[in-house]
Amino acid sequence: MSKLRIDLAYDGTDFHGFQKQHGLRTVQGELEAAIHDILGSPIDISGASRTDAGVHARMQVVDVPLADKRHLPLEKWLYVLRRRLPKDLVANRVSLTSDAFHARHTVNWKMYRYAIDTSPVPDVFLARYATHQPFHFDLDAMRRAAAPLLGEHDFTSFCAKRAQQISKVRTIHAIEVYKEHSILWIEVKGNAFLQHMVRILVGTLAQVGRGRLQEDRVKEILEARNRCLAGPTAPAHGLCLWHIEYPTDYATLTQNE
Amino acid sequence: MSKLRIDLAYDGTDFHGFQKQHGLRTVQGELEAAIHDILGSPIDISGASRTDAGVHARMQVVDVPLADKRHLPLEKWLYVLRRRLPKDLVANRVSLTSDAFHARHTVNWKMYRYAIDTSPVPDVFLARYATHQPFHFDLDAMRRAAAPLLGEHDFTSFCAKRAQQISKVRTIHAIEVYKEHSILWIEVKGNAFLQHMVRILVGTLAQVGRGRLQEDRVKEILEARNRCLAGPTAPAHGLCLWHIEYPTDYATLTQNE
Repeated sequence: MSKLRIDLAYDGTDFHGFQKQHGLRTVQGELEAAIHDILGSPIDISGASRTDAGVHARMQVVDVPLADKRHLPLEKWLYVLRRRLPKDLVANRVSLTSDAFHARHTVNWKMYRYAIDTSPVPDVFLARYATHQPFHFDLDAMRRAAAPLLGEHDFTSFCAKRAQQISKVRTIHAIEVYKEHSILWIEVKGNAFLQHMVRILVGTLAQVGRGRLQEDRVKEILEARNRCLAGPTAPAHGLCLWHIEYPTDYATLTQNE
Repeated sequence: MSKLRIDLAYDGTDFHGFQKQHGLRTVQGELEAAIHDILGSPIDISGASRTDAGVHARMQVVDVPLADKRHLPLEKWLYVLRRRLPKDLVANRVSLTSDAFHARHTVNWKMYRYAIDTSPVPDVFLARYATHQPFHFDLDAMRRAAAPLLGEHDFTSFCAKRAQQISKVRTIHAIEVYKEHSILWIEVKGNAFLQHMVRILVGTLAQVGRGRLQEDRVKEILEARNRCLAGPTAPAHGLCLWHIEYPTDYATLTQNE
């Protein structure tokens, strides 16, 4: 008994999110169909993150219980997956890991990056991956506003109202705000995230950056545990699941890269 | 009487090329429809390059004869165009130029860049803009093979057979071959290009780079004036019209950037 770990990347534009939904094109759906085709029997996979429709992933991790169905030598997996997956969904790495590994539950931390194109005219080649907001942003004010969000908190104010998670307590390790040419990046690193959490954090910090929300209001909003007080949910297409870190205990047994 | 010069950029993936075609989504078609909407009357525009279906442009230039139809102050053009154009077609600059300016005929030189992703696993975020060829390329052999192509020649061997141009004589100023991380770039600068010319040059040089074609064969292929001898036409989506240079005589009268 062992598990297959697959590291994926996808352009989320044409997917209805990660999670399988009947009749819709999803990352999980496409991947399960490809693996079903390879193994000859249906299989359920788990992903590290249920990214929303339109959100991209530079690194997403799924685990695949192999049981006795492992017909295929490890070194063939990358090749056969690539042949079966669509152009906007790529398997970057396939490895054999312990049965105790679980793509979502054993995560150490995850990092999301959000891109805002602040140039007067949008860069057409970034239009799928960044929101266009041709405004001045006060980066220092955004950084100061973000400081009280670090650490363990109840993030109800920064969670979609319809979210099903019972506990809204999460830990944010770091929030970085910086510019690279005309792109404003907001990087959020944490142990786990609530539904829309990163997008609401971004939407709120962007309001601070534009001077539409006082920077010290962010701490009050966090404490109020009320979604209505926070800023808007930033558009999905600016967000990318950038990195997922697992404890070294789950070092892969063998890998094929 | 004066002309409007519009500098455009587009992601060519979802366009059937630049040139207007009945019932198909083209750059010219979308742009003329937007300008028609702005001016209230139909208009014919000329583009510097008739890029093929799937080819991108970081810089494409069109001229728009204004006659007496110029209802709109110059400073408004960028804004109103942006509101009317789709997300994958962006006007970067609008300027007023002399009536003698012609987007295609007055070109000084144009530069195209072709991108080949040579990494073992394709980068999903480059999949629209680079062809995936996970092979070793001998860059020096490609450079040596390219040398005899520089200057004025009859490029019949590197032109689509169905091309309508009568004279196949063109001048190539420079061909650069270099790598940036895992991307192999082929840059071609010239006064004008025949149909598919850059893509056939790239397809032929790539054959040399992979050791499938002797480097000194390229000179012979050029001299034979026979399309059948050259390499395959490289896929459209790796190609981008990168820059167009006009003589300074056509310096814009006023501009809005």
